Amino acid sequence: MAEGPHSENPMQEFADLRRGAAPALSPELQALIDRRDRALGAGSMLFYDEPLHIVKGEGVWLIDADGRRYLDVYNNVPHVGHSHPRVVEALTRQASTLNTNTRYLHETILDYAERLSATFDDPLSTAVFVCTGSEANEVALNMARRLNGGRGVIISDWAYHGNTAALLQTCGIMPESNRGPEVETVRVPDLYQPAYDLTGDALIDAYVDEVRRAIEKLEARGIELAAFLVDTIFATDGVPDVPPEYIRRVVDLVHEAGGLYIADEVQPGFGRTGDTMWGHQHYGVVPDIATMGKPMGNGHPIAGVVATEELITRLVSELYYFNTFGGNPVSCAVGMAVLDVLEEENLMENARQVGEYLRGGLRELAQEHELIGDVRGRGLFNAVEFVEDRESKKAAGKKTRQIMNAMRRRGVLIGLDGRRGNVLKLRPPMPFSRENADQLVETLGAALGDL
Amino acid sequence: MAEGPHSENPMQEFADLRRGAAPALSPELQALIDRRDRALGAGSMLFYDEPLHIVKGEGVWLIDADGRRYLDVYNNVPHVGHSHPRVVEALTRQASTLNTNTRYLHETILDYAERLSATFDDPLSTAVFVCTGSEANEVALNMARRLNGGRGVIISDWAYHGNTAALLQTCGIMPESNRGPEVETVRVPDLYQPAYDLTGDALIDAYVDEVRRAIEKLEARGIELAAFLVDTIFATDGVPDVPPEYIRRVVDLVHEAGGLYIADEVQPGFGRTGDTMWGHQHYGVVPDIATMGKPMGNGHPIAGVVATEELITRLVSELYYFNTFGGNPVSCAVGMAVLDVLEEENLMENARQVGEYLRGGLRELAQEHELIGDVRGRGLFNAVEFVEDRESKKAAGKKTRQIMNAMRRRGVLIGLDGRRGNVLKLRPPMPFSRENADQLVETLGAALGDL
Repeated sequence: MAEGPHSENPMQEFADLRRGAAPALSPELQALIDRRDRALGAGSMLFYDEPLHIVKGEGVWLIDADGRRYLDVYNNVPHVGHSHPRVVEALTRQASTLNTNTRYLHETILDYAERLSATFDDPLSTAVFVCTGSEANEVALNMARRLNGGRGVIISDWAYHGNTAALLQTCGIMPESNRGPEVETVRVPDLYQPAYDLTGDALIDAYVDEVRRAIEKLEARGIELAAFLVDTIFATDGVPDVPPEYIRRVVDLVHEAGGLYIADEVQPGFGRTGDTMWGHQHYGVVPDIATMGKPMGNGHPIAGVVATEELITRLVSELYYFNTFGGNPVSCAVGMAVLDVLEEENLMENARQVGEYLRGGLRELAQEHELIGDVRGRGLFNAVEFVEDRESKKAAGKKTRQIMNAMRRRGVLIGLDGRRGNVLKLRPPMPFSRENADQLVETLGAALGDL
Repeated sequence: MAEGPHSENPMQEFADLRRGAAPALSPELQALIDRRDRALGAGSMLFYDEPLHIVKGEGVWLIDADGRRYLDVYNNVPHVGHSHPRVVEALTRQASTLNTNTRYLHETILDYAERLSATFDDPLSTAVFVCTGSEANEVALNMARRLNGGRGVIISDWAYHGNTAALLQTCGIMPESNRGPEVETVRVPDLYQPAYDLTGDALIDAYVDEVRRAIEKLEARGIELAAFLVDTIFATDGVPDVPPEYIRRVVDLVHEAGGLYIADEVQPGFGRTGDTMWGHQHYGVVPDIATMGKPMGNGHPIAGVVATEELITRLVSELYYFNTFGGNPVSCAVGMAVLDVLEEENLMENARQVGEYLRGGLRELAQEHELIGDVRGRGLFNAVEFVEDRESKKAAGKKTRQIMNAMRRRGVLIGLDGRRGNVLKLRPPMPFSRENADQLVETLGAALGDL
């Protein structure tokens, strides 16, 4: 069974875990950090004990001020590869031509909306464009609450959905004091570290019951359900292997209670999971609303929401939704270029094949290292969970942080995640190759040897 | 005295006013609108009775699919001019090099934050970057509410501050049902159409008393004041000439009540008002927090918040604020290029001079047209208010809409605003010349002749 309840302030604990003990830094790096503290506020997170001064990105590589190349296994934002020339070309061409708002007619936004919506299953057909994943989830939540009715939201207890006041309430990862009475958290199935001493159907039943109880708790407070809002790869949860049956049963419960299923595709979207364009398609349940962001513009700030024509029409006509920058011709040209490259370079299939190859390599490595408790994921969104031993499955959080920093020293950039801070999150740009996967596995092996 | 209270749904009324009666459209335009309704939802606003299909922008010009050139007197987003080559060059250069998040060290964000913050008065010194004006105001409101304490917000009764759930509560322009108990509205001084039958100090006293009563109403509900949040050019209010004394006295009251003064610079910022870089500097009162957006990246989605180092440090360290796209090297390079062009092309001084020249031309025109009730503004943010006659000052809302559409037919693009829908808002890109001002005035004269 999983370890006990969360601390009162998981985000602080998480930040501390990530931060670790800072080594002595070079004068150049320390001077940059001092400037940053003054210009941007002290204490905002930097990656790694020894932060990186990155000056260039290309493909799956990030290059620092000393010219050292790092294999980027962290960033899913540069989806088709850092500084992809095809995307830069589209950006430049449209920015030299026209960049204005959507209250004029323009064909690029229509071409893009139609092409994007066509990758979703019926009845999802219509799009609204915004600039960030937070704005996308704001729109989704407003549609659920103000158009569908109800105020209650059920989220995973380790979720992250955005940084606005309304969305901070829907972040399990943030201090519980953020939440308020309208949000209930549930644990999502974790088959490696189950929250219940059960197996098979009984285990799924127990997890589904958490959602049932959450609906009842909201109702007991006089709050009707608006939405079940989940990241469909459960990234911050540590990428647990959530059974499709769970999602199907939960969505039935949510619909019975009058709520909507909002699929947050900011992390898994745009083919990253290899088998499907969108994370939710893995579970075989069409959401009522899908939101997307990070990889959509390869780093250019574009995000969006896809839903039924009826819901989006009500959003723009009843709630007067408008976003000054959202859906401008430059953003749409960039979004279109990302779809072009995905298709032409066959990157979804690459994610499927290389992801499988990578998990194979990691599982081989696990045979030599008791510390590797679990290897899981889909396509190029993968996780390695570290435990003190495979019997107790006690989280090896400190060692995971050491491994992350050792890999950074050895030229491979990864991040950690999960409620116990013991999961390496592997989420590279999509052109990640078998050779890159080999380097990742070899470096992880070496980092384990460093311990 | 001004006309009676607002309708229950000012936004709908406003949308109706703007929309007007649609004329028969060309088959090409109608086909685009039909596609738009399906792809992006029906009913979202398009400018003008006969919407425009814009394909190109350069300087102060927008060009439609038939090659017709329109003088753009509406868009303040392309601040230094549509498709400015210097800005496009910076965008391309940085997008070809690196675009990543702020958890790596990068010099461009530091250079930009330092340069931007230096344009503010002490003690404002530190910046946080986001992607939209809504995100900027979200940050400001969260800083006021969660770091300073209190929940109450006082806004102008015709304000617009953003499209998130929390910010929709702070939009006077939106239906009152959006607001909730934490927001109180006040009328801001309108010397042309005063809300009270008073003049001089007594009139200012009456307006200041509205703020005092708003604080008391919040307190009576057990809600402490968090912030007084205003657009420092009062754009949606119709650009009333608000006396500096009013702002000084109100901010004193707000501070006494423990609240912060948040200056929303999304509309007036970046030198548009000609005399000062920021709208609030006109009143001689340094805000506690300033937010900015629209013109900041000349159309590229960048926005920001400038405050004291202490507040921003608490935002990032206590509230863990992070924005994936915010402050990325590409956005900062673009923001820097906008500051470069502003300086090199002397655009703030241009705004001052051409603005003055323009108001002179408009006032001359007013001598021939009783319909022009008032001409006002600062720099290149100006307003013309239309009234049925100068005695009654009855709003000529329908005629204002006709004028706006007549000017569009005659090749000049403007928008309308104000609580009575009778204010033409003149807010062109900053390289607007005397020649452009002449064309605007002549076209307005001709449009008045069309009535």
